[in-house]
Amino acid sequence: MRIAVDAMGGDFGPSIIVEGALSAAKHVGVGLALVGPTAVLDEELRRHPDARSLDIAIVEASDVVGMGETPARALRRKPRSTIRLAAELVARGEAAAFVSAGNTGATVLAAHGELGLLPGVERPAIATTVPTRQAPSVLLDSGANAECRPQHLLQFAAMGALYVRATRGIEHPRVALLSIGEEETKGNELTRDAHRLLKASALNFVGNLEARDVFSGQADVIVCDGFTGNVALKIGEGLVDMIEELLRQELLGTFGTRVGYLLSRRAFRRFRKRVDYSEYGGAPLLGVSGLCIIGHGRSSAKAIRNAVALAARFVEQDLVGRLAHATTPMAG
Amino acid sequence: MRIAVDAMGGDFGPSIIVEGALSAAKHVGVGLALVGPTAVLDEELRRHPDARSLDIAIVEASDVVGMGETPARALRRKPRSTIRLAAELVARGEAAAFVSAGNTGATVLAAHGELGLLPGVERPAIATTVPTRQAPSVLLDSGANAECRPQHLLQFAAMGALYVRATRGIEHPRVALLSIGEEETKGNELTRDAHRLLKASALNFVGNLEARDVFSGQADVIVCDGFTGNVALKIGEGLVDMIEELLRQELLGTFGTRVGYLLSRRAFRRFRKRVDYSEYGGAPLLGVSGLCIIGHGRSSAKAIRNAVALAARFVEQDLVGRLAHATTPMAG
Repeated sequence: MRIAVDAMGGDFGPSIIVEGALSAAKHVGVGLALVGPTAVLDEELRRHPDARSLDIAIVEASDVVGMGETPARALRRKPRSTIRLAAELVARGEAAAFVSAGNTGATVLAAHGELGLLPGVERPAIATTVPTRQAPSVLLDSGANAECRPQHLLQFAAMGALYVRATRGIEHPRVALLSIGEEETKGNELTRDAHRLLKASALNFVGNLEARDVFSGQADVIVCDGFTGNVALKIGEGLVDMIEELLRQELLGTFGTRVGYLLSRRAFRRFRKRVDYSEYGGAPLLGVSGLCIIGHGRSSAKAIRNAVALAARFVEQDLVGRLAHATTPMAG
Repeated sequence: MRIAVDAMGGDFGPSIIVEGALSAAKHVGVGLALVGPTAVLDEELRRHPDARSLDIAIVEASDVVGMGETPARALRRKPRSTIRLAAELVARGEAAAFVSAGNTGATVLAAHGELGLLPGVERPAIATTVPTRQAPSVLLDSGANAECRPQHLLQFAAMGALYVRATRGIEHPRVALLSIGEEETKGNELTRDAHRLLKASALNFVGNLEARDVFSGQADVIVCDGFTGNVALKIGEGLVDMIEELLRQELLGTFGTRVGYLLSRRAFRRFRKRVDYSEYGGAPLLGVSGLCIIGHGRSSAKAIRNAVALAARFVEQDLVGRLAHATTPMAG
């Protein structure tokens, strides 16, 4: 099995990406197609002498889509970008999946363009795993579609349910709709219409979920439009960072520098494991006819390693095949 | 000065509301008009013998709008509800402000209906103070309008800027638009159109703000539609609750029950003060022609006390007058 990796994606450059990908190759036992400028990647590989024994190919691509570029324009202007070539490897069957921590919009667009959509799907959606007080939930769409119609949310719900069934073995996942009130009359036009569609579907729809309860574990799948989902997740990230900093200050202030530092470090180390996105590595783009894992822009080497490992696991579980051949129609 | 208090609003019943309101009356030195069923309120007041020396009136209202009721229907069916009568006291000049921790939608509707809107304002907005790494920011709308048009966001921005100027003395508050990317082309149709309006206005518009940076303190005023704002704030609340629980478990696990408990309690006590909504008490509904403070449904007695104190401070600062007579037009 070979996983294509956009070696130039992400905020921290190719060293971090290559380091993480190699770690996955070593520990998970997958082959890699590193997509990027050959000179840069040769240089990076030289720093990892043990990589010689691994199954690693370099796929030349010199154009890089910047994190702040407008996706459609950037892909038009840079037809041989690392993101597009990584997607192309999957489309041609030369890689079983691709991973990019680069420009999310461009990754979605490239995956959509190169791989096409599964039958019954009008929009792909990013399915992000969120920690809860109980088992993790899957939130989608977390950023592929800033604008959604009610039937898109229904499709996200159906894909999310199939995803949870395929990866976690839950036969009838509980599906909830993220809204600003529990009653079906609450919310905006989109959520009210989507509520009606979900209620009429064959899905195990448990109703609206308020944002306050996203971390309660009351639902296995939480659906929303990509604007709302992205805001929700990024509020969470920003808040975790701030809380960590404030609490560290409090612990330092309360117990003195040395003890406080140790206390906060030990407490946070294990805590982080439960809320840190890098533990999950990345999020699959559901609905495209091939496997695409979207990493976080701020991906560390560990996050990339976990993203590649996640891709390998989904290939083994035949996630895309199971989504494509779901016996129930997409609408549930 | 007399503040009207919806004594039946909130999740915890009249005992908590009355306790908090009396505490404000005592410590801030304001008069109260407690709105609710006389029998219930007499009973509550009997439990506070020291209340006899305070300036407290009971305004009879037996109908209560439930937290889960549809606002418009509930207000129609219950014309003499505590929420409406509290708003009416302000409209008639018998109270300088009113506070309700009850059904938010009904409070917005009652305030709008009884007080009317300020010139140039099409929709009132809830302005919530959020903690940041630096000085607090004001986020609006945080839940009054599930559906917004671009000009509403411009009006929210203008009101938010005037609010920050009036209450914190910042002459040209930095205004940001909550979106899913920093570039003006990112976001949905609403934010792209609102971005153009804000850019063309006389406001100190600093551009889009990603949700991850809401807690950075990069902006004094953060505008968004009420659906997004409500999701953002409630995600924050749910996450703080979960983090507190998880970290407590970690500290207990790491240091043993007794020491861990003390550690986490001491660290969280001061930390909570910086992120807890009850410290701020409530959020003003900006844009109505009178002062309305919306409390959190889960308001504790302390939160109610702080909400009443906030109302008194805004009356002294003539917040509504300054919003009404802003020398610059609402559009900035």
